[in-house]
Amino acid sequence: MFRKEDSIEKRNKLIGQSCRLFYSDDPLKIVRARGQYLYDENGKRYLDCISNVQHVGHCHPSITQAATVQMELLNANTRFLHDNILHYADRLSATLPEKLSVFYFVNSGSEANDLALRLAHEYTQNEDVIVLDHAYHGHLTSLIDISPYKFRKLTGQKAWVHVAPLPDTYRGLYREDHPNPAQAYADTVKEVIDQVHLKGRKVCAFFAESLPSVGGQILLPKGYSTKVAEYVHSAGGLFVADEVQTGFGRVGSHFWAFQLQGDDFCPDIVTMGKPMGNGHPLACVATTVEIAAAFTANGVEYFNTFGGNPVSCAIGLAVLDVIEKEDLRGNASRVGAYLQEQLKQLQTKHPIIGDVRGVGLFVGLELVTDKDQRTPATDAAAQVVRRLKEEYICVSTDGPWENVVKFKPPMCFSMEDAQLVSDKIDHILTDIESGH
Amino acid sequence: MFRKEDSIEKRNKLIGQSCRLFYSDDPLKIVRARGQYLYDENGKRYLDCISNVQHVGHCHPSITQAATVQMELLNANTRFLHDNILHYADRLSATLPEKLSVFYFVNSGSEANDLALRLAHEYTQNEDVIVLDHAYHGHLTSLIDISPYKFRKLTGQKAWVHVAPLPDTYRGLYREDHPNPAQAYADTVKEVIDQVHLKGRKVCAFFAESLPSVGGQILLPKGYSTKVAEYVHSAGGLFVADEVQTGFGRVGSHFWAFQLQGDDFCPDIVTMGKPMGNGHPLACVATTVEIAAAFTANGVEYFNTFGGNPVSCAIGLAVLDVIEKEDLRGNASRVGAYLQEQLKQLQTKHPIIGDVRGVGLFVGLELVTDKDQRTPATDAAAQVVRRLKEEYICVSTDGPWENVVKFKPPMCFSMEDAQLVSDKIDHILTDIESGH
Repeated sequence: MFRKEDSIEKRNKLIGQSCRLFYSDDPLKIVRARGQYLYDENGKRYLDCISNVQHVGHCHPSITQAATVQMELLNANTRFLHDNILHYADRLSATLPEKLSVFYFVNSGSEANDLALRLAHEYTQNEDVIVLDHAYHGHLTSLIDISPYKFRKLTGQKAWVHVAPLPDTYRGLYREDHPNPAQAYADTVKEVIDQVHLKGRKVCAFFAESLPSVGGQILLPKGYSTKVAEYVHSAGGLFVADEVQTGFGRVGSHFWAFQLQGDDFCPDIVTMGKPMGNGHPLACVATTVEIAAAFTANGVEYFNTFGGNPVSCAIGLAVLDVIEKEDLRGNASRVGAYLQEQLKQLQTKHPIIGDVRGVGLFVGLELVTDKDQRTPATDAAAQVVRRLKEEYICVSTDGPWENVVKFKPPMCFSMEDAQLVSDKIDHILTDIESGH
Repeated sequence: MFRKEDSIEKRNKLIGQSCRLFYSDDPLKIVRARGQYLYDENGKRYLDCISNVQHVGHCHPSITQAATVQMELLNANTRFLHDNILHYADRLSATLPEKLSVFYFVNSGSEANDLALRLAHEYTQNEDVIVLDHAYHGHLTSLIDISPYKFRKLTGQKAWVHVAPLPDTYRGLYREDHPNPAQAYADTVKEVIDQVHLKGRKVCAFFAESLPSVGGQILLPKGYSTKVAEYVHSAGGLFVADEVQTGFGRVGSHFWAFQLQGDDFCPDIVTMGKPMGNGHPLACVATTVEIAAAFTANGVEYFNTFGGNPVSCAIGLAVLDVIEKEDLRGNASRVGAYLQEQLKQLQTKHPIIGDVRGVGLFVGLELVTDKDQRTPATDAAAQVVRRLKEEYICVSTDGPWENVVKFKPPMCFSMEDAQLVSDKIDHILTDIESGH
């Protein structure tokens, strides 16, 4: 094994430096992991509050076994018939509203979002896309175009891309004191649609994470998506729900975060990714018969070399099994609620805590230097991350001002873990407030 | 297990129909595979001449073992330090010219080609891309734009995309009787560059497969790439070698197909994919320190969730080990040469064989109805594919007229396999010629 310093030196030489490290001034070298715990090269154990990809826990034996068994048998492409992809599509179908019944398997959330764009273009024959402010939908050229979080620093905003305000009821245009923020924010999308039409352009899709994460662990006000879908549909566009970060039961009460909006809401396209294969590159697009038919009608094959292969699907099936068998949705509900409760208690004590929000094991702790102005406490948030690392706990920040400490741990996160992290945060905030 | 008919019915319902099946009128249901052999649901064995992804052979035990061992230990993302990615980049580096020393790991050839485009844009600050006619570089929005094979049927040609003639010395502009086809074809790229400049535009990149495959198993004339690189560099652009189908020793004599062009040629960016993980979603971009630095200079992180994770890299390392230990490059050279020899003997006997070409285990058999006019024998090629299936041999066709029977088998393909397939083709062509 390379010494840590040598690893850093070799990495600086061999790997593109745009690929960043956590804790860049003193990165962690992780050699082993299990459940919600990471172990460094000295055997030190870290509590992992951020690996949402390792959804059912790092190195879950059921997942490894499923992969091994299928790798020994077959890993051909989907131009041959195979049962795994059918079983898997069936199982996913059961988690979704009935009309989302056609599946395309791909290798990453980015590939899924790119395909969603292609499907929407082909179905609507329109070009323009509306996205939420600060959104991030992936690293591909087409997705940087629809990610304000990226295009503002890179290529700029294309004429076919339109940005609607982030429906953030803590820091946004309409806040918790507004009588109907869902309607008010949905109306901002309507205004964007009107502007698109005034320019003589047409709406292809409204694209949004069901819980905007890079935007700062935001919960869309209930009713927002239903209303937006109504406006977007009237304009001839589609509603794409990006569930890459939020799907597979993370929110506890539901399998998909968009289901928090209620039964009267159904997206036209759902994209999924990160937690789907517990670390294995696996992602998917679900859509309707009509949209899939429009994509087929152009007569052009869509072939994804690795997408939906028997090993990926075996792993995907195993992840679904573990979520059910270990009641990880129940755990996410219970532990997530307890974590929020603990953090809300801290809020009464620490004025630096502006907001505690979330659902299931998707939780944000927003720090502010001033409760009235809600001035982002960016430095304090960075300090919390750094200090928690010294306590062997990994968290990170999000939001436009990087002042939201986020929690999106493996779904086996326990009550004790939640207690530990909130206790440590309590101490750290006390220190910060006293100037230490 | 679903009966085959039920699999087809379920698949038609659940999976987007743009995802096509081989032998669509009677697809194969493959349940098991080993080496170069596929087994259907009745235990019937098929010789696999087309699975270039399962590079070292289907279900190679060394690959399964490497995956299992690492899955049991750790599969975190690359924001943590880990040795596997460093060892793997080191090993890949040793196969490439010294200046290609910086790596980005991704999940598919499409992701790799998209990133190559981003790198080239960022480095050159130019927009225009020159591609070869009939090229296919991937299924993503950005890659359909640079794939004449796709964009002609879909969105059409963008203003920033320019198509140079395919340097096909059998069927193209300059043929085997031309004194210097390499120079002549390179000059067609020079003409495209001049046209780009006349339009007041600037060249970002020349993008080509090192052996154009969808174009019809084409060998670039030796010297072509060196000359094209010279022209492209003079115009301020980069040369991107797409090795997604052709890398990892398929050509036998060299590790990369671009190396067939000689030591004086080095691309600025190399993309790799399909065979890299023997079926596991793994791909990569290699480039120079300067290009990587330009990409870093914009200050924007590139994060690929699954790319370069410890499991992917362990699998990649195991693939490299097997290629070496089993001398699969030597095997590709020997068996590929023998296969071509056999097919060339058939050519003296069967006037329908217009051309036999290839290198290593990348071989094309071009069928024509007329030797002088070289009229594509599309129907006969389809018939060969169908009849070989009845003989339990899988091949497929490529080329703009789908009249090139292609061979790109797992690298463990044997002399006996080569003999068998050429014998069967002999019989089938005799039948076809006699009107059966």
